[in-house]
Amino acid sequence: MLLLPAFHPSRRFPSPPLPPLRRPMASSSSSSERVVAAGGGGWLPEFPNLSPSHRDLMAGILSEIDSRAGPLLLPSSVPADVRSFENEQGTCRGALDIRPGVVDGSTIDFILASWLHCELPFGALDITTMFGFLNATTDAPHLLMEFIQSSPKSLIIFMDLLPRKDLVLHPDHLTTFYEDTHIDKQRLELKKVTGALPYFSNSLYIRSVLSPTAIALNISLAEDGEVNMEEVLRDRVSPVSKEVARTWLDKCVCSERVVSEVERADLVRRDSLIKTKTVEIDLAANLPRLFGPDVAERVVEAIQKAFKIK
Amino acid sequence: MLLLPAFHPSRRFPSPPLPPLRRPMASSSSSSERVVAAGGGGWLPEFPNLSPSHRDLMAGILSEIDSRAGPLLLPSSVPADVRSFENEQGTCRGALDIRPGVVDGSTIDFILASWLHCELPFGALDITTMFGFLNATTDAPHLLMEFIQSSPKSLIIFMDLLPRKDLVLHPDHLTTFYEDTHIDKQRLELKKVTGALPYFSNSLYIRSVLSPTAIALNISLAEDGEVNMEEVLRDRVSPVSKEVARTWLDKCVCSERVVSEVERADLVRRDSLIKTKTVEIDLAANLPRLFGPDVAERVVEAIQKAFKIK
Repeated sequence: MLLLPAFHPSRRFPSPPLPPLRRPMASSSSSSERVVAAGGGGWLPEFPNLSPSHRDLMAGILSEIDSRAGPLLLPSSVPADVRSFENEQGTCRGALDIRPGVVDGSTIDFILASWLHCELPFGALDITTMFGFLNATTDAPHLLMEFIQSSPKSLIIFMDLLPRKDLVLHPDHLTTFYEDTHIDKQRLELKKVTGALPYFSNSLYIRSVLSPTAIALNISLAEDGEVNMEEVLRDRVSPVSKEVARTWLDKCVCSERVVSEVERADLVRRDSLIKTKTVEIDLAANLPRLFGPDVAERVVEAIQKAFKIK
Repeated sequence: MLLLPAFHPSRRFPSPPLPPLRRPMASSSSSSERVVAAGGGGWLPEFPNLSPSHRDLMAGILSEIDSRAGPLLLPSSVPADVRSFENEQGTCRGALDIRPGVVDGSTIDFILASWLHCELPFGALDITTMFGFLNATTDAPHLLMEFIQSSPKSLIIFMDLLPRKDLVLHPDHLTTFYEDTHIDKQRLELKKVTGALPYFSNSLYIRSVLSPTAIALNISLAEDGEVNMEEVLRDRVSPVSKEVARTWLDKCVCSERVVSEVERADLVRRDSLIKTKTVEIDLAANLPRLFGPDVAERVVEAIQKAFKIK
């Protein structure tokens, strides 16, 4: 789970704008411009290196979140040099935004959105992530979305409502958030895509954090096949991602849950562990390699601060 | 997870022996006879309807368990009419055995072994299961093995060290039993088998009970292909099953763990839920359909008694 983008329509990235990376992949004619325009415009230029459909996918999810949860969020809590960053060689670029929930009346702890583009020896790597973390006034699941493109023919997908409790010990939680919401239908829908196979993270901790309905897929298209990843992203992945986001907004963010003091303390403890381990396994291990120690430290620190784990 | 067979070399099924089912599948020349003979002989005749390699697979696992954990187990706790049972029409037959752990000095709560053979409209269904449940003097994982054959070309496999605790909250548990044991290698080994694909149980509860290294596979061979399921069972599945069983015996049954009184109570509560839900989801839902209400009630009651959930 690598992280990163800016998604609030009213905010722009620090000026002067960064120069385009060596291999820009996106055209400016993407339909995501319309999504952005409808939401107030402004953050789209910060996705210059994503393919149009990948950019639209993220824009669509963020627009969905914005339309329902926008009033529950404060402005960005991330300094400008973390909101957008790159390595010395200019071969890797990232953007990260974190917006905390309003103090009163919001179940949202924060929304984190990010993108990362790296030119590596084997080709370009694009990772976009959306993390919706809830606070301890509710025990409803968090939201995770991540899309990893390491070639035009390969896409790894994570979409999940991350459980807040041990589901074995709390089968009522399983019923409420995973059975009654019929969320597994979305996994079954994407499983039908040609070339889609279940994906197992190398990290056992990441595997253990996921729910039993997690969408964890690797879509690998034949090099000479007729199916195009842009179409898969647009026609298959995007509708499912919006449905998962809507389910989270309807059934998790907006659900009324009664949580006792003891339960709250347990939730805080469990959530802190997830945040700490995620940073440790993912960011602290990968960012220095891609961005150098200074940039990586700055980004990791901003995330730890937002995560309240430092 | 359907259950069933007798595995202790010194015990026989009730006499007179049951007549053979309508479509016996096994020959008496299987190599499992040697395994049994080495262990004292006696229980093999109770697997008449399994294919030779499926029978050898179970015999091998039970022999592995017997050789290490035999002295830790008491004789069978199951009445004769549950140890072997069939439906009125004689189209379905099952065998079940449960051996509790000795009271002092054993970490084993019980070992359950079972087989079930049914002649259904679409063909024969064979299910063999081995459940190794530990007691609350340890927090080490339980063992689950299950093999479901619904046609000569299809095999569903479950093999897992079932976690006793929420692994998100107890990453040390993940390290000790799942990372340091390198158990995921076994999953990767079986994943290479031609036609093997990850299998997702319809029950979200069953999915949530499994560990991040669970082997949950559906091996589906091409009808006209050269690969033979008997060879797959013998050459691929059997070695992995023994390795998983050995890991459980070495690292779980025989590991020394310090468990506080509070932790014990939590373990008992979590284990009880797993047992209750397993019976509810699996046996109570399926046995009456296959064996009729009277036989099903008798079998379920014996299991509930051994599970201490009634």
